[in-house]
Amino acid sequence: MQIPYLPAAAPQARTGAGLQLPASLAARLRPGARPGSGSSPPKVLGSGSSLTPEPQGSSAGLLDAVVPAVTARSMAWHLGRLSAGPCWRAARGGCGELRAWSARGAARRICRPPGTAGSEQSRGLAHGPSAGGGSRLRTGLAAALAGVAGLAASAFGHVERAEMVPKSSGARSPSPGRPEEEDELSRRCRRFMALPVTDLRELRGRPGDMKTKMELLILETQAQVCQALAQVDGGARFSVDRWERKEGKLPFCAMGVSSVIHPKNPHAPTIHFNYRYFEVEEADGNKQWWFGGGCDLTPTYLNQEDAVHFHRTLKEACDKHGPDLYPKFKKWCDEYFFIAHRGERRGIGGIFFDDLDSPSKEEVFRFVQSCAQAVVPSYIPLVKKHCNDSFTPQEKLWQQLRRGRYVEFNLLYDRGTKFGLFTPGSRIESILMSLPLTARWEYMHSPSENSKEAEILEVLRHPRDWVR
Amino acid sequence: MQIPYLPAAAPQARTGAGLQLPASLAARLRPGARPGSGSSPPKVLGSGSSLTPEPQGSSAGLLDAVVPAVTARSMAWHLGRLSAGPCWRAARGGCGELRAWSARGAARRICRPPGTAGSEQSRGLAHGPSAGGGSRLRTGLAAALAGVAGLAASAFGHVERAEMVPKSSGARSPSPGRPEEEDELSRRCRRFMALPVTDLRELRGRPGDMKTKMELLILETQAQVCQALAQVDGGARFSVDRWERKEGKLPFCAMGVSSVIHPKNPHAPTIHFNYRYFEVEEADGNKQWWFGGGCDLTPTYLNQEDAVHFHRTLKEACDKHGPDLYPKFKKWCDEYFFIAHRGERRGIGGIFFDDLDSPSKEEVFRFVQSCAQAVVPSYIPLVKKHCNDSFTPQEKLWQQLRRGRYVEFNLLYDRGTKFGLFTPGSRIESILMSLPLTARWEYMHSPSENSKEAEILEVLRHPRDWVR
Repeated sequence: MQIPYLPAAAPQARTGAGLQLPASLAARLRPGARPGSGSSPPKVLGSGSSLTPEPQGSSAGLLDAVVPAVTARSMAWHLGRLSAGPCWRAARGGCGELRAWSARGAARRICRPPGTAGSEQSRGLAHGPSAGGGSRLRTGLAAALAGVAGLAASAFGHVERAEMVPKSSGARSPSPGRPEEEDELSRRCRRFMALPVTDLRELRGRPGDMKTKMELLILETQAQVCQALAQVDGGARFSVDRWERKEGKLPFCAMGVSSVIHPKNPHAPTIHFNYRYFEVEEADGNKQWWFGGGCDLTPTYLNQEDAVHFHRTLKEACDKHGPDLYPKFKKWCDEYFFIAHRGERRGIGGIFFDDLDSPSKEEVFRFVQSCAQAVVPSYIPLVKKHCNDSFTPQEKLWQQLRRGRYVEFNLLYDRGTKFGLFTPGSRIESILMSLPLTARWEYMHSPSENSKEAEILEVLRHPRDWVR
Repeated sequence: MQIPYLPAAAPQARTGAGLQLPASLAARLRPGARPGSGSSPPKVLGSGSSLTPEPQGSSAGLLDAVVPAVTARSMAWHLGRLSAGPCWRAARGGCGELRAWSARGAARRICRPPGTAGSEQSRGLAHGPSAGGGSRLRTGLAAALAGVAGLAASAFGHVERAEMVPKSSGARSPSPGRPEEEDELSRRCRRFMALPVTDLRELRGRPGDMKTKMELLILETQAQVCQALAQVDGGARFSVDRWERKEGKLPFCAMGVSSVIHPKNPHAPTIHFNYRYFEVEEADGNKQWWFGGGCDLTPTYLNQEDAVHFHRTLKEACDKHGPDLYPKFKKWCDEYFFIAHRGERRGIGGIFFDDLDSPSKEEVFRFVQSCAQAVVPSYIPLVKKHCNDSFTPQEKLWQQLRRGRYVEFNLLYDRGTKFGLFTPGSRIESILMSLPLTARWEYMHSPSENSKEAEILEVLRHPRDWVR
């Protein structure tokens, strides 16, 4: 999914001419995205990522098994050995993407399998939590990973052009500074999948600034999710592309981390999460800031235990900051991810919020931090639990039909997706990474009564309270 | 695709309050859909149809062959023998749909394979040009037909509720009247796939009225396309569902025929066509009328000969009515079917026009009639030529990716699709029948230089003049 959002409910002052927002952006900023409106804020510029590995023929990859009991690891190796034949082409769809984005001439990092570089310049930085040699990393990736993490970071008037990441020569992690400069920031950066977008010297110069704190949280979240997914699949590796926005600076700061994970196995649910931060400076020098985000689950089949686990984990994260947060944001989530023409939600929800600007930057940041840290414990156990479940062709088909609904939501309703696509300078491939590798539409498909398919449809039509 | 359009460039008078247009419709009526605007008029209410047969596993159906050299006929029989297993489920997606729609409580007819009835009442009227017994017809359908034809017809203040078509008992065609009433109209109706939406007595009462003439042209076009497709696949059969719009009458007359055909074989191109007619009565009793329509081709791979044949056939149809029509409507088509965020057209174009209201009803009708009659000769030869072509998994994959772009266009840009989906009372399943059975998205997919994939992309990015 895309990363930076602007709140639809933002004060009108934020859209004032003094901000020099692009006309197309200003026109789309309008109130109404509060709970109950069923809408969500537009995402300013597409910048996100997803990993959607998919079987081709009889092959299978991590978190998935077309042939039940084929392990993720063996498939990772299998795919790693393929050259540019049909299977490899299929595996391309399963590439991972790590992206770092800056609104003002920063750089992109995108993880993708070897040999798939397009016209865009690719800088391969290979990372793996348990690994090893550069070349091995680069061939082990592909369909081996069904995870995703995106990163967008920019600053309002302060971000220098980020440096390109040098090609990896077997290093396990970025080298964020010269050895003699090793400090706390450098040590934190060592755990990241990619260097911060903002120059380290600038980050060091403003350690208490929210832009610094949020950028580091974003990178930490990215690393946590990727490393957790890599643990489920021992063969998972990431390489990093860095990219630049050619259109130059934007008159605001927008940063975020965003992810959509579409597992192949229909018993492993799809997840989407996004956490973001904005700063806009008005003509009079007054600064507006706000946070947004959310995390929602889209299972193909209902598993009550999973649903309760997912929601309970999110609720616990919210409850640390107030008892009303989870109920409010759970409701907002159900309302936002509504496919109106179907009368269904996209999934079984989670939390969704935007335009959080009180009581204070610090308090909202800590809330967002708790939410971001809940991604791994809310989701990864479900992946571990189900990634080797056996499934029938009929179950796979139902997954494909549900993915069709996912496409319908993202293209028809998700304001961020549409806004991103229609904004000059946005990166189309990144925005549409939220789409599944494959999807399906059947005329008048209607599950039979009392079927497992009808069971999940019932929940999508009538959202439940999973935890009290 | 959907059937009735209202012209974006319609005079504002048409949207006046005196017309009692639904607010949501009136809000969307605005000028700007002329050539050069890159936009098109909204479709009032979704009402369309498509046939998208698709292989499941190793199976194949008409116009398609996953296993090369499997003939259409043999597969039709194969699928006809399947019961409700996984393959049959897959075949459901390939059902045909014949639809008749009336804005004021008329009836729908939808062709679908046996055993797939949803909650909607189904009246099965089986038709086949070369056939035969009722039960055989009903089991032969399913994935056997990759054709589609939809029909929408309504009248402004005149249409009575259409009768339900009685269940077929082996009759080859509708019985539009008692034997003693057999007249020219009845004889024409015998060739149709389904009865007119408008009561025959009413049609007889206004033989020269444009609503009558257009409804009959619509039914004729539907029959021609279905029968031509059935000839390519000897096993193709249609059954007919009739449906009613529950929301009641609309303050205008809109009728049309619409079709999207997605062949399985990547060497057989996808076609879309739509021809429609509108009448709106203003508060002062003044009647506005206009025609719209078009026909465009979406090949997976470029075949110059096919492209020239398709465009030449359309040009010849246009040239009968004026030398400037084809160039103008060819350009409009290239502009309308533009996927802006990709910088590509959906296909290699054809013709597209709307808001045609001069020089006279009769002359525009004859032009539309020529266009509608050109559908079969422009397209069916291409299907015959390619439906048994062998193809590689790589070619099938490229087709799936291009179908993803088709989905992107239809959900993101096609104003009719979006408007239909957001209009109360529209039939979602009919609107989304324009989507392919399956589609695919891959991150950063980029064909290699000088490949066949790059060749078609070049044409989609830079439309050509195929005939002069």
